[in-house]
Amino acid sequence: MISFASDYIAGAHPQVLKRLMETNLEPLPGYGEDPYCAAAREKIRAACGCPQAQVEFLTGGTQTNQIVISTLLREHEGVAAAKTGHVSTHEAGAIEYTGHKVMELPAEDGKLAADMLEGFLQAFYSDENREHMVFPGMAYISHPTEFGTLYTKAELEGLSRVCREYGIPLYLDGARLGYGLMSRETDVTLQDIAALCDVFYIGGTKVGALCGEAVVFTRNNRPPHFTNAVKKRGALLAKGRLLGVQFDALFTDNLYFELSRHAIAMAEGLKTILHEKGVEFYLEAPTNQQFVILDDKKLEELRQQVSVSFWEKRGPDRTVIRLATSWSTTPEDLEFLRCVL
Amino acid sequence: MISFASDYIAGAHPQVLKRLMETNLEPLPGYGEDPYCAAAREKIRAACGCPQAQVEFLTGGTQTNQIVISTLLREHEGVAAAKTGHVSTHEAGAIEYTGHKVMELPAEDGKLAADMLEGFLQAFYSDENREHMVFPGMAYISHPTEFGTLYTKAELEGLSRVCREYGIPLYLDGARLGYGLMSRETDVTLQDIAALCDVFYIGGTKVGALCGEAVVFTRNNRPPHFTNAVKKRGALLAKGRLLGVQFDALFTDNLYFELSRHAIAMAEGLKTILHEKGVEFYLEAPTNQQFVILDDKKLEELRQQVSVSFWEKRGPDRTVIRLATSWSTTPEDLEFLRCVL
Amino acid sequence: MISFASDYIAGAHPQVLKRLMETNLEPLPGYGEDPYCAAAREKIRAACGCPQAQVEFLTGGTQTNQIVISTLLREHEGVAAAKTGHVSTHEAGAIEYTGHKVMELPAEDGKLAADMLEGFLQAFYSDENREHMVFPGMAYISHPTEFGTLYTKAELEGLSRVCREYGIPLYLDGARLGYGLMSRETDVTLQDIAALCDVFYIGGTKVGALCGEAVVFTRNNRPPHFTNAVKKRGALLAKGRLLGVQFDALFTDNLYFELSRHAIAMAEGLKTILHEKGVEFYLEAPTNQQFVILDDKKLEELRQQVSVSFWEKRGPDRTVIRLATSWSTTPEDLEFLRCVL
Amino acid sequence: MISFASDYIAGAHPQVLKRLMETNLEPLPGYGEDPYCAAAREKIRAACGCPQAQVEFLTGGTQTNQIVISTLLREHEGVAAAKTGHVSTHEAGAIEYTGHKVMELPAEDGKLAADMLEGFLQAFYSDENREHMVFPGMAYISHPTEFGTLYTKAELEGLSRVCREYGIPLYLDGARLGYGLMSRETDVTLQDIAALCDVFYIGGTKVGALCGEAVVFTRNNRPPHFTNAVKKRGALLAKGRLLGVQFDALFTDNLYFELSRHAIAMAEGLKTILHEKGVEFYLEAPTNQQFVILDDKKLEELRQQVSVSFWEKRGPDRTVIRLATSWSTTPEDLEFLRCVL
Repeated sequence: MISFASDYIAGAHPQVLKRLMETNLEPLPGYGEDPYCAAAREKIRAACGCPQAQVEFLTGGTQTNQIVISTLLREHEGVAAAKTGHVSTHEAGAIEYTGHKVMELPAEDGKLAADMLEGFLQAFYSDENREHMVFPGMAYISHPTEFGTLYTKAELEGLSRVCREYGIPLYLDGARLGYGLMSRETDVTLQDIAALCDVFYIGGTKVGALCGEAVVFTRNNRPPHFTNAVKKRGALLAKGRLLGVQFDALFTDNLYFELSRHAIAMAEGLKTILHEKGVEFYLEAPTNQQFVILDDKKLEELRQQVSVSFWEKRGPDRTVIRLATSWSTTPEDLEFLRCVL
Repeated sequence: MISFASDYIAGAHPQVLKRLMETNLEPLPGYGEDPYCAAAREKIRAACGCPQAQVEFLTGGTQTNQIVISTLLREHEGVAAAKTGHVSTHEAGAIEYTGHKVMELPAEDGKLAADMLEGFLQAFYSDENREHMVFPGMAYISHPTEFGTLYTKAELEGLSRVCREYGIPLYLDGARLGYGLMSRETDVTLQDIAALCDVFYIGGTKVGALCGEAVVFTRNNRPPHFTNAVKKRGALLAKGRLLGVQFDALFTDNLYFELSRHAIAMAEGLKTILHEKGVEFYLEAPTNQQFVILDDKKLEELRQQVSVSFWEKRGPDRTVIRLATSWSTTPEDLEFLRCVL
Repeated sequence: MISFASDYIAGAHPQVLKRLMETNLEPLPGYGEDPYCAAAREKIRAACGCPQAQVEFLTGGTQTNQIVISTLLREHEGVAAAKTGHVSTHEAGAIEYTGHKVMELPAEDGKLAADMLEGFLQAFYSDENREHMVFPGMAYISHPTEFGTLYTKAELEGLSRVCREYGIPLYLDGARLGYGLMSRETDVTLQDIAALCDVFYIGGTKVGALCGEAVVFTRNNRPPHFTNAVKKRGALLAKGRLLGVQFDALFTDNLYFELSRHAIAMAEGLKTILHEKGVEFYLEAPTNQQFVILDDKKLEELRQQVSVSFWEKRGPDRTVIRLATSWSTTPEDLEFLRCVL
Repeated sequence: MISFASDYIAGAHPQVLKRLMETNLEPLPGYGEDPYCAAAREKIRAACGCPQAQVEFLTGGTQTNQIVISTLLREHEGVAAAKTGHVSTHEAGAIEYTGHKVMELPAEDGKLAADMLEGFLQAFYSDENREHMVFPGMAYISHPTEFGTLYTKAELEGLSRVCREYGIPLYLDGARLGYGLMSRETDVTLQDIAALCDVFYIGGTKVGALCGEAVVFTRNNRPPHFTNAVKKRGALLAKGRLLGVQFDALFTDNLYFELSRHAIAMAEGLKTILHEKGVEFYLEAPTNQQFVILDDKKLEELRQQVSVSFWEKRGPDRTVIRLATSWSTTPEDLEFLRCVL
């Protein structure tokens, strides 16, 4: 059975695994203090055009959101996010678990608009009762969003401007960042993101690694005693090398970008097939995830041969599903799908 | 200066204070194990027509919401509430502080509709990814709502039915319950509430007490080790008598209802004045709070002589304000307002 | 039945209650912004000889410890305390509930010694693995301690010196502060405490009030957005006047000190009786609590007529009990005890 | 430079890495629902002689302790542990972060004695004030302990008996379990542990895996909605296969036990060298960790050529250090150490 269920259906890109093999028996210090972590940090700083950035490695996406948000927020603050944002919907309340509110704002196609955010902040600061309210202390966005959509550079600039005006950090969840950067429809570069965001992460789990996300603090704003905070949340990996070696490999010879480009090419192929077959789109995205609507009967048949992801019910007998490509998708996978659709 | 700023501008109803005086020097056990707490519990059970109810006293409203919600929810659950609910907006994130999400639903005039709740629960349970989501584990409503509006008996029955169908408790925040029960436009009795809700509280702070709320668990559903949970949250009053004596007084000779009735009579008078003066209503409520819109200039003038509450900005130079009556409002207060408006 | 069970067996000192009566119907703003809170703050600052102090009112002792500790500690810190300290033993884990560790140190007669604290801090800062450990971020002491004992001025100076050397605040829990200050065996004044501690609280609940504790931040070190933090923990009293009026009364005409002095006189009488009757002391304290050992049979008899407090089992058939005097203890209570012992 | 700094200095055992390679491109479902997780669960159940066991995979040791303890404890409970236990000392307060107290008990050589635990529980349940205290809701032990020491079977039986008598689960932290089971001085088997403990984990990170711990719930006592709880704590690995494949490999052909046996053989060699060289032992353990005392000057020299771990200062100019062997230690490493010591 083939799978378009997600972008984490395979292990690691072979080049990443190869580096794990090659370095496997070297004795190294733990907790991210090994030379591979150091090299990966340096390469990421270079790729971001942000020599002063502080780079930290964590294991997974929800963990990263939880740690970044809960360590950067102050006591009285919550994080503003699109109502459809990952932190709002699919993290089992991981942010609230740390004692902070996710302040959900209306979104379009998964995106938080700068003027929506600005209106929200204005209203908050004109409210005389605000000392009894959660203070908005950060803005969270994802790029690509949960719907595979992308912010334009102008949109990011708008969000960045609003955040700076109100003195709150802009945090970008880049679980699928590679697939956003390599989209054929984007004008946003990694350097743009580093320049416009206060903190963001470069997703590894969904873009070629076994696990791992690289958090980039762009303004010398890594919370103090960050290692302690990570440990306290149960997230400090003893063998930090596992993350360091992988990111070192991903940021060597443009691997991260090349494998992302491949996933985008496969996504373009996927869209072509879906159109050919007359499948109804729920949302046709410029990145590696596509959302289509199927009759439940058709869906059941399809699922005999192809793994796909439930997205939401669309009336009593239709369902929105997600199909995702990734670095591991092959032309043969697409051909198979063409045959069975 | 007179005040319509809130329903907690005065101390306690004189009859309540008198009982505190009379019992002041009796040596009594602490932590709610005194005979006045016992008597108050019994009187509240009788008033609710719910002999099996478990009644616990707490000090304030946000504290009560925080404790009831966080002790009744299970690990994986959050509480569904109107987006305008007190727990959603004006408790500084007190629910999230306990690690649980407030799941905000659209509301009309502060009310959560049964079909809205049902649709939300249906969608949740048809979602294949729900193990990655916060489970709705309780429904929170306030009665009167934050806008002074009231549920009809039929509306409460609808909510109660949905909650039972999905096996979650219905929790009613009765910070101003007396003012709701004595409204001239309600068909809901205290007994109805006890029959339809799984847990609710009878507000004392805003209805005649110095402080204090009486939580009623109607289905033998008080969480185990409740005293310990209250202590752990810093909320266990050493001199529980302070709450017991007050609620004993409030539920003697119908005092709670009589003083509520007075506040409603004053609110009717207030509405008449506001209409006479041609003040624009934002929301005319059947209870003790009224919401009107004033030009900011007019508001500034008014505030020289009368305390009122900011509600929200209404465009660049108009503001929604709240005027509240209470058991302590006098006809003279109304007359004064009539003169200065 | 008479009671030596605790120092919170009665309501409020009559003078305190009188002021509540007199001010009862004045319309006042909520949340501690009324003139009585302001006046009480001013009087407390004067009594402390600390004009720059920030004074905040909270409702109870565990709540105060929870709020002060959790708002002053930083993310990676815990609070060092005697193993027998109230926060270590009898607060149901209220500090841990906020995510911070109580770091328990050996104590003698309830007291934390400066050299013990210093040794602990030295060891911590010489530990190469400390980034994986909880950082000691505050020292907590109680005065009088849970055993009724008192620090000498020299001992407090020692603790203060160590805390400043390591840059952590010294916090003094003064739930029974009046009884300590009026002890015949102390050389510590309220001004000394204000000078030596970074934050402390003046207990009201056990010293003449219905409820209430006054927190004094002596170094302009009140956490930012403190009201919000209090609200978030469910502890913000709507009618802040209840605390303001009481502390205003307690700090008018030396009432707080006079009623404390009375309790101490009663405690001296109590000790005399216990010695006369040949009761075995577990700990004879210089303040209002005395700890004695009784055979269980004798204890059972005594409890028919006098309320006392369990302290701990002392072998299979003996028990340590606590007898406390307070502002409400009368010579008649003592006489009664003399007769039945 | 060679390293005896810890048992997590190398990557994964080559056989484990080989299996990751072989399975790398298979499309698999995420979140632990793949066939390798299923196979590993089955093999672990068999090795434990516990067919009904529920087995869950997590990424690291502190994370595992945090999740197991916080999901099994009830609201009012804390976990009893040796004062030297990992949860007490070296997890940065990860347990308290979840709102629960670690109740520290005196220990000898890192071990919690059954009679110490029993005395503690007895005292707790004979305390009349216990509703104001943290309830002991679990006993935590580590095996091997943080000092490399081991419980005898009789000692484990004693702890197990006490726990069952008081109705609390016995939880064994097996971060280095293999090294305990293969010690030449133990009479405890994996089946014994499964029979005597309510929950324990089999450490992978320190025993041959890149990362990963296998939690075994032996009494059908896995908390409900466990996946949700793991997600909420940021610990749910998208590619659960990473853990499944590794544990599947470790529990194939006795690999886990064979590689542990090797580490023990190396530890015996290490002890021989340390004795030959006249190094002073702080604690000579029957497992893979040895604790010795060095003059600081000697230590500094040694550290030029060999990585070792700081344990604690031993007076002004001596230090206790730890040397650990593991599956990756070679006879050449030992020989090198012999030459430079």
